[in-house]
Amino acid sequence: MSSVDAVDITEANSVAAGTNAPMKRIVASGIGGRLMGSKSMYDVTADQIAKDNLALLLEKDKKAKAKYASNKHISEQPWTRENWAQHINWLNFVLVFAIPVMGLLSTFWVTPRIETFALAFILYVFSGLSITAGYHRLWAHRAYQARLPVRLFYAFFGAGSVEGSIKWWAHSHRIHHRYTDTVRDPYDARQGFWYSHMGWMLTVPNPRYKARADITDLSDDWVVRAQHRHYLMVMAFSGFLLPSLIAGYFWGDYLGGFIYGGILKVFFIQQATFCVNSLAHWIGVQPFDDKRTPRDHFLTAFVTFGEGYHNFHHEFPSDYRNALKWYQYDPTKHVIYLTSKLGLAYNLKTFSQNAIEQGLVQQQQKKLDALRANLNWGIPLSDLPLWDKTQFFEKSKEQKGLVIISGIVHDVSGFLTEHPGGQALIKTSIGKDATVAFNGGVYAHSNAAHNVLATMRVAVIRDSGATADTYDRQLEMIAAKKEKEGQA
Amino acid sequence: MSSVDAVDITEANSVAAGTNAPMKRIVASGIGGRLMGSKSMYDVTADQIAKDNLALLLEKDKKAKAKYASNKHISEQPWTRENWAQHINWLNFVLVFAIPVMGLLSTFWVTPRIETFALAFILYVFSGLSITAGYHRLWAHRAYQARLPVRLFYAFFGAGSVEGSIKWWAHSHRIHHRYTDTVRDPYDARQGFWYSHMGWMLTVPNPRYKARADITDLSDDWVVRAQHRHYLMVMAFSGFLLPSLIAGYFWGDYLGGFIYGGILKVFFIQQATFCVNSLAHWIGVQPFDDKRTPRDHFLTAFVTFGEGYHNFHHEFPSDYRNALKWYQYDPTKHVIYLTSKLGLAYNLKTFSQNAIEQGLVQQQQKKLDALRANLNWGIPLSDLPLWDKTQFFEKSKEQKGLVIISGIVHDVSGFLTEHPGGQALIKTSIGKDATVAFNGGVYAHSNAAHNVLATMRVAVIRDSGATADTYDRQLEMIAAKKEKEGQA
Ligand code: HEM
Ligand code: HEM
Ligand SMILES: [Fe+2]
Ligand SMILES: [Fe+2]
Ligand SMILES: [Fe+2]
Ligand SMILES: [Fe+2]
Repeated sequence: MSSVDAVDITEANSVAAGTNAPMKRIVASGIGGRLMGSKSMYDVTADQIAKDNLALLLEKDKKAKAKYASNKHISEQPWTRENWAQHINWLNFVLVFAIPVMGLLSTFWVTPRIETFALAFILYVFSGLSITAGYHRLWAHRAYQARLPVRLFYAFFGAGSVEGSIKWWAHSHRIHHRYTDTVRDPYDARQGFWYSHMGWMLTVPNPRYKARADITDLSDDWVVRAQHRHYLMVMAFSGFLLPSLIAGYFWGDYLGGFIYGGILKVFFIQQATFCVNSLAHWIGVQPFDDKRTPRDHFLTAFVTFGEGYHNFHHEFPSDYRNALKWYQYDPTKHVIYLTSKLGLAYNLKTFSQNAIEQGLVQQQQKKLDALRANLNWGIPLSDLPLWDKTQFFEKSKEQKGLVIISGIVHDVSGFLTEHPGGQALIKTSIGKDATVAFNGGVYAHSNAAHNVLATMRVAVIRDSGATADTYDRQLEMIAAKKEKEGQA
Repeated sequence: MSSVDAVDITEANSVAAGTNAPMKRIVASGIGGRLMGSKSMYDVTADQIAKDNLALLLEKDKKAKAKYASNKHISEQPWTRENWAQHINWLNFVLVFAIPVMGLLSTFWVTPRIETFALAFILYVFSGLSITAGYHRLWAHRAYQARLPVRLFYAFFGAGSVEGSIKWWAHSHRIHHRYTDTVRDPYDARQGFWYSHMGWMLTVPNPRYKARADITDLSDDWVVRAQHRHYLMVMAFSGFLLPSLIAGYFWGDYLGGFIYGGILKVFFIQQATFCVNSLAHWIGVQPFDDKRTPRDHFLTAFVTFGEGYHNFHHEFPSDYRNALKWYQYDPTKHVIYLTSKLGLAYNLKTFSQNAIEQGLVQQQQKKLDALRANLNWGIPLSDLPLWDKTQFFEKSKEQKGLVIISGIVHDVSGFLTEHPGGQALIKTSIGKDATVAFNGGVYAHSNAAHNVLATMRVAVIRDSGATADTYDRQLEMIAAKKEKEGQA
């Protein structure tokens, strides 16, 4: 390439990873910010990522193999009686398993008041929507922009879902999109339903598969910074204290508020979110593309405020909608739209209808091609022997049932009794050229008839200009007739 | 064509019309046999039909125009106060309109016993099935063969539907299939819903559009001959006398038997049958072919014992089934299957699953092609200007936003803010060749991204070997990577 440079892959990957420029360093108080993640997974240099892009991943794997040959990382060692405790990410185990289980058990003793139940439900909706409309579509995907009150709301109630800070969540989510179905995908669906649901979080990950995505746009937002810095406090207050205090102050149900409005609410939101990583990559249809695992399913959408049209979402990640049809369930989309009507959100992004329909058409084409490949369309003309007319004449004497249609010889002997137009008509055609008779001279045969005919091919007549689709001939005849009509 | 004859079209048409050989002449007693038809419509010579085949119809129309210029047939004259009575086929008017209306009116005075109602329903099923399983699938389409008791049953109860003799009915039905949607189609759906439902029968048809089909196979069946010869008698007995006698003898309801088990039963069967000619050519889907009017609809199937999958039926007329899926309603198919299990029917014909699926695939392809044609797939490469690399370098200075991907220059300036992967990455690529970065070097873009990219085409780089589908490049890269893996 004389005067045109190719994009420098290392440099571009460093942009993609956000390591090209110094990023505002935000230290979270304690372990809070990376709840449910591992620091070891995103602490990686651009250079490493550049060498690791999809095409070059392999080389690195090899080297790593050598390196870890003697000294294996815990995630590469089999589970044994001695090391099982090292395999487990204990912080996450407590957060997404132990506490919820205790919460569930305690419901045997703690009966909530109906008001507590209503409060829990409202907080469930607030915190759930903060994950879908806020963490996911606003921050991770920049699908729209939002004004301060909305960002504060989502940052506050989103923290109450106990899924980590915006910064952490959006970062690993961007990695998920960029490395979907590869070893670098944090919730790699290829590793099974349970791995993508919770397993990835409950076990210690392999630092060889680190990845990093650019999140400079997020660190530029002070709401994101503040939430990350004070995450533990915000989370504890929004997630647990607030429901307990409200229920206690207004109707004296401190414990009920804590358990139902706190622990159990968190449990349900977490499980719903995990479903997007598991269920949405496992059940449903793939109307836009089936090269990767994401799928569309109403059930997933139903438990996740509309995040279940995941096949669409992975193709069009920055579209503020996940569902397009009126009968699909996507309340998050409506909430975003509503906030925009109230002037609280703007720049709602959508992909063009053209691009969306292109995906649908291509995917349907793929399915159709697969169906077509399984059917018998007759021997291709190029694989048939070439006869001249004298040969056809001779062969017709030995072999009863040869008919020429559109320059191709067919053996119709097996079809005599099957012919919907009766045996007599086919018999009159044997040993002859029935092109005109077949294509309208006697009967303008259906598409089906042309298909059946193709399965009976025996040879091509030399210099007949035969085409694969005898139907073309008929179309030509009809066109000629139409033209005549026009002139009349 | 040196030694191969073409099929003689006149001769073949004479075979198709059954006029090549003398046919057994069966005289019906009186007007009986051709109830609901007109003799003038099938009394036609093979020579006439040969001249009239689809492609040549036009010439004849011209001549006829001249001939009828001065002396028009009644069907070609406008309806006036003087001639309206000549337009009407009075026999049919009485049979399918006047009598049923009187029957309906009489229900205000005649209340049937519940037994009479049950009898009417049973006869409705017997006579209706005799039309669908007998007249239609057995005789008109030879979809299977049946032993004497079954043929007698269908001939007897079929006559009781008052739709003419088997001979007449099957003849005009074969003409319908052969000339679907043309002037020769007796119930030509193009002439409107009411015409194809009853209009064709209530008005005097134009003898210019006569047609004839071979029915020698039918006249070879003595049951068909006998039924035609004694049609009036069989019809009167099976259709009206029998129900009246049964209801009268067993529970004293002669009049109820006559009206409900006779007139009204006939009325409902007739209307249901007419629906196949009207409704089945008007409502529903066209999964097999949309070149002609027949359609599949559950409603039509429901009122006609399963004859409503008419799109399938016109493509595969000699298949004993009309519906293929378990959830489609086709009791006639089950009756035929049952009689075959009882040894009363045999040679049940079906089209190959291959041919059926070919039709489905082709029709879906047609729809997909129509969708595809409406979308913007980018300017075709052949319509783009050719640049060499120096030109690209120069143009990049003036016009910000030019990027080469897979040998094609794209203008991405309008997409910067829309890019799901962020502005920074696209900016680093401007003025450069981003083929590798776009195709996996930084991110292996989705199908959707390739579609969006194609809409931004500006020029082709000379000697780059650019292909229309940039996606091919990515597949090549992945394949190369896979190969490497294999070697490793
Ligand atoms: C040799 C291969 C042939 C095949 C595979 C074939 C196939 C078919 C099929 C599938 C139908 C029913 C579907 C439709 O409406 O198209 C049909 C109907 C018919 N065919 Fe053929 N055909 C062949 C040859 C011929 C020839 C040579 C003639 C005439 C000389 C002919 C005359 C007719 C007629 C008149 C019908 C209409 C029957 C009706 O629907 O009542 N066929 N054929
Ligand atoms: C110039 C035309 C480009 C178009 C039309 C385009 C389009 C897209 C689209 C539609 C997506 C989201 C869907 C998907 O997963 O494929 C995407 C994501 C992405 N693109 Fe591009 N892109 C372009 C150029 C680039 C370049 C040159 C780079 C890198 C140098 C790049 C890097 C990325 C990355 C890293 C993502 C992943 C973002 C995420 O899902 O988090 N893109 N692009
Ligand atoms: Fe996903
Ligand atoms: Fe996402
Ligand atoms: Fe029809
Ligand atoms: Fe039919």
